Amino acid sequence: MTPTTVHRVFNFAAGPAVMPLPVLEEMQRDLLALPGVGMSVLEISHRSKAFESILAEAEASIRKLAGIPASYRVLFLQGGASLQFSMVPMNLLDAGQVADYIDSGSWADKAIKEARKIGVVNVAATSKADNYSRIPEQHELKLTPGAAYVHITSNNTIEGTEYQQLPDVGDVPLVNDTSSDMFSRPIDVARHALIYAGAQKNMGPAGLTVVIIRDDLVQKAAAKKATLATMLNYAVHAENTSLYNTPPAFAVYALGLVMKWLIAQGGLPAIAAVNRRKAAKLYAEIDRTGFYRGTASTRDRSLMNITFRLKSEELEKQFVKESTAAGLDGLKGHRSVGGIRASIYNAFPEEGVDALVSFMREFERTRG
Amino acid sequence: MTPTTVHRVFNFAAGPAVMPLPVLEEMQRDLLALPGVGMSVLEISHRSKAFESILAEAEASIRKLAGIPASYRVLFLQGGASLQFSMVPMNLLDAGQVADYIDSGSWADKAIKEARKIGVVNVAATSKADNYSRIPEQHELKLTPGAAYVHITSNNTIEGTEYQQLPDVGDVPLVNDTSSDMFSRPIDVARHALIYAGAQKNMGPAGLTVVIIRDDLVQKAAAKKATLATMLNYAVHAENTSLYNTPPAFAVYALGLVMKWLIAQGGLPAIAAVNRRKAAKLYAEIDRTGFYRGTASTRDRSLMNITFRLKSEELEKQFVKESTAAGLDGLKGHRSVGGIRASIYNAFPEEGVDALVSFMREFERTRG
Repeated sequence: MTPTTVHRVFNFAAGPAVMPLPVLEEMQRDLLALPGVGMSVLEISHRSKAFESILAEAEASIRKLAGIPASYRVLFLQGGASLQFSMVPMNLLDAGQVADYIDSGSWADKAIKEARKIGVVNVAATSKADNYSRIPEQHELKLTPGAAYVHITSNNTIEGTEYQQLPDVGDVPLVNDTSSDMFSRPIDVARHALIYAGAQKNMGPAGLTVVIIRDDLVQKAAAKKATLATMLNYAVHAENTSLYNTPPAFAVYALGLVMKWLIAQGGLPAIAAVNRRKAAKLYAEIDRTGFYRGTASTRDRSLMNITFRLKSEELEKQFVKESTAAGLDGLKGHRSVGGIRASIYNAFPEEGVDALVSFMREFERTRG
Repeated sequence: MTPTTVHRVFNFAAGPAVMPLPVLEEMQRDLLALPGVGMSVLEISHRSKAFESILAEAEASIRKLAGIPASYRVLFLQGGASLQFSMVPMNLLDAGQVADYIDSGSWADKAIKEARKIGVVNVAATSKADNYSRIPEQHELKLTPGAAYVHITSNNTIEGTEYQQLPDVGDVPLVNDTSSDMFSRPIDVARHALIYAGAQKNMGPAGLTVVIIRDDLVQKAAAKKATLATMLNYAVHAENTSLYNTPPAFAVYALGLVMKWLIAQGGLPAIAAVNRRKAAKLYAEIDRTGFYRGTASTRDRSLMNITFRLKSEELEKQFVKESTAAGLDGLKGHRSVGGIRASIYNAFPEEGVDALVSFMREFERTRG
């Protein structure tokens, strides 16, 4: 049961993804009974003092990490980003209004499809014609004056692109799906009206969604209580501090530990520096000779999901097979685009990046 | 880290609730890396072979335990019973149809309120005037011919009542919220059209909802894909074997282990015998002298949630305080009804019941 007896591989999965080892070790130590509680965190009532304090600490850590202004609520929900694709327009898009969406990737496209079931959507810009290899630029945006909100996807997990700076949307509420780069770098919460992210990439295990929402949007949702399903109403969850019904307690606990780990790493500026260094090593190797070919526009390259191709699908298959055998797991690109994808979230160890670079060199040497 | 060094109390919480110790121990042992996988179950991709097999095994165990006919799908969803209160009518209640609800308790009442946001509801019977101390009887039911479905709540967690047999609803689809007595006794799946239950009482940790749905209802849901939110559509989850988006992977894993533990106990008939014996001990003590007073109609008493009162609220406060100090945790009744509630789900050990009976005797001796 000690770490040294446990064989762990390097996990490049896009999510659920690698978690910090010290967090896993703490969870393992306390799994039968939380210290001073006498019950597992998997068993305690969500109305107990023990859980209330776990929830409060998780929120406090998030607020500290991201410097969240007092006018924002932090919600712990279920259903992943996919349910947020519906909840955002259900709560924020009224009849007679238009919502602007920037279509920067496969997940943005899914968000658009769900929003269209609820109300009127304007695709303000799209890079679909370029296979989503880039983020639409500011000058391309055809924004609707007085739109209900503008929706963006800060990091495109499948295509490996990431906003380097937020678009200027004026006074229109900015809604940001940050599922795959949440807390990988500093985030200017005050420029957003709503931020949402599934936990399972940078924050914890699957089954938990974090929503950071400004008070005026909570008020807008509150007006919909008579008609909107209670569980889908942001105001209900805000008023009940995420305890309207039983929350995914273990995932909240795990997220809280990951947030503390992040704070101990030095917070978002420090982890961003590590993430930049890790990604730079991989992109340098990709660009070194032309044997590998990055798929994302250089300017928009993601620090979280590094996507690249080889000369042929046959060679890519070989690459995945041999890397897996070498203890580098999960490098196969998303089934919709193929190729190779190395997801290197906050908790992914730099040694794993070095190991991949070495593997890439050796693979090129023998096949180049 | 060995069980003997861990102090565990008796956990009478209504949910999240006690889990089988051998299951917790197995999860603890494998938390850093699943055998042969090299990653924690908290980290593995939901598209990996390892997780696909965890999901398939959990479903197979459920099918085996409950003898589920091939014409039913088993879904692993999020959002708890509270989200099902909305999903059921969203998927199954069309314009021009009526849904019948039997109002047997606080949770049934919540289900009714959500359904009314979606369509036309007929409350076929209610025991609200009796403080939900009993289950409405067959002769009271005013069922709608050709109703979209009849909704019942098999066990009323707050009020401590439980259906002893299913109502006769003819050919109308029966929808059953079994959150608090799922798999505590044999269940005749074929008499249902849809069964749903939050996992956090009898099946595993919070954050997972099990839905068992008959194929014809999946077909009805499939017709709504163009309008209903994708994440709220049963057909989408059925067609994607609960992998449309990232499922709450750890909770599915834990549930799978609990199901295996249940099978090892001898399955549903065997656990039902234990549950009857455990509950009988407590009800016998409640009925012994009149010092304690059961709140549920004797005929409808729940085997899962045993509710009772003492002479005064003052005495009840004292009872909760002293029992907690004695290592009997979570006996305070639901805040909406007060009194005492002992929740004794499948995993609650019989020694804990014996300890409570002893405590009750001693409490009566000193205060009676």
